[in-house]
Amino acid sequence: MRLRNKPWAGEFIANHPDFVIPRPNEWKGKWKRLFDNEQPIHIEVGTGKGKFIVEMAKRHPHINYIGIERQQSVIVSALKKIKEEGLSNVKLINVNASELTDIFDKGEVERIYLNFSDPWPKKRHGKRRLTHPVFLTVFERILVNGGELHFKTDNQGLFEFSLVSFSEFGLLLKSVSLDLHNSGFEGNIMTEYEEKFSKKGHKIYRAEVQFR
Amino acid sequence: MRLRNKPWAGEFIANHPDFVIPRPNEWKGKWKRLFDNEQPIHIEVGTGKGKFIVEMAKRHPHINYIGIERQQSVIVSALKKIKEEGLSNVKLINVNASELTDIFDKGEVERIYLNFSDPWPKKRHGKRRLTHPVFLTVFERILVNGGELHFKTDNQGLFEFSLVSFSEFGLLLKSVSLDLHNSGFEGNIMTEYEEKFSKKGHKIYRAEVQFR
Repeated sequence: MRLRNKPWAGEFIANHPDFVIPRPNEWKGKWKRLFDNEQPIHIEVGTGKGKFIVEMAKRHPHINYIGIERQQSVIVSALKKIKEEGLSNVKLINVNASELTDIFDKGEVERIYLNFSDPWPKKRHGKRRLTHPVFLTVFERILVNGGELHFKTDNQGLFEFSLVSFSEFGLLLKSVSLDLHNSGFEGNIMTEYEEKFSKKGHKIYRAEVQFR
Repeated sequence: MRLRNKPWAGEFIANHPDFVIPRPNEWKGKWKRLFDNEQPIHIEVGTGKGKFIVEMAKRHPHINYIGIERQQSVIVSALKKIKEEGLSNVKLINVNASELTDIFDKGEVERIYLNFSDPWPKKRHGKRRLTHPVFLTVFERILVNGGELHFKTDNQGLFEFSLVSFSEFGLLLKSVSLDLHNSGFEGNIMTEYEEKFSKKGHKIYRAEVQFR
C-alpha cells in the first residue's frame, strides 16, 4: 500500500485511546476485561484501512475484534471507520506483529486473520512473511488450542510458500480455495485491496488452518 | 479420456508378458527380482497412454518404473511405446489402483506419481478420487517410510480437495505450484493430456507430499 505522510496521525491516535489502545502490553491476559464481556477475541494482523475488521465487527456482534496495524498513517483510516460506526466490539493496536506475545497471553485469541499481507517476494526476506514459521510460532503462543488462522492473498508465490509453511509447522489445512470469488464461499468481506485487485482480474486465494 | 473400443487389446497385451506383467500379485515382495537389480521402484497410478512413464524411464535409467492402468484399450498405447523404445526399466500392470496392496509389499515402492487423475467432481463420488484417504491408505501400505507422492492436475476442484486430504492424512507438503509451466520447475515431462490442455490455457497444479 502506498503510504501518505500524515503528520497529524500520531496526535489523532493519541486522542482516541478508546479505539487505539495505548500501552497494549498492560492488557496482556486481561483483554476480556477491556471489552467487559466473555466473547471470543479474533484479531486481524495487518488491518490496513480497516474495512474488513469493521464489517466483521458489524456482522458478528458476539465476537470481539482487535486490529493490529503498525503504520500510523494507515491505522487512522480504520480508527475513523470505527468512530463513525460507533462500534464497541472492535479495537485497534498500533504495534508490529512480532510484539504480539507481549500483548496477548496463550489462549487469549481464538482466531487470527491475515489479509493480503506483504508478500516479501525476495527469498532473503522470507522471514518477514507473516506465514513464515517465525510468525506461526508467535501466533501459536497467543491462540487457544485448536485456534484458527484464516488467510487471503492474491499473491501466488506467497500462497504457495504459505501452504508449505503451514504443513511444515504441523497445521491442519481445513479448507482451501484457489478462486475465492467463484467458490461459493459465503460471508466473504472484501478488504480495500481485495476490491481493487479482484476487479483487475486477480484471483483470490484463501486457506483456513488450525493449530493443534 | 475418450475410450475407443479395441477388441484386439486383450490379445495384444497377453502376447507381451515381458511388458504388461501377467498375474502381478505373484510378484508381491519380489519386484526387484523381476527387474533383476536393486534400483528404486517408482510407480504411476493411471498411466494412460504412457508418455510420462516412458520418458521418465528414458531419462532416469537408474530407476525402475511401473505403470498402473486399468483400461486395456489405453494401456496398449503405453505398451507400444515401451516396445518401440526397447526399455528394460519400465513395466506395466493392467489392474485397478485399489488392488495395489495385493501387488506390492510395504516398502516396495519409493515414489508414486498421479498425473491428471479423474477428478470425480460429484461429491458423492469423492471416494473414487485417487487423493481420497481411501487411496492414501493404499499408497501408505506400499510405500517406503518417507516415500513420496507427486501429483499433477489441471482440475482446480480436485487440487483443492487433494491439499485438504493430504493435510488431514498427516502428509508433509514439500512443494506446491499453482502454475507449473511458469514456475521454473525443471525436468517436467508432460503427459498427453497435459500437452493438450495446457495449450488451451489451463494452468497446471502440482504438489509433492511425503508420507511419514
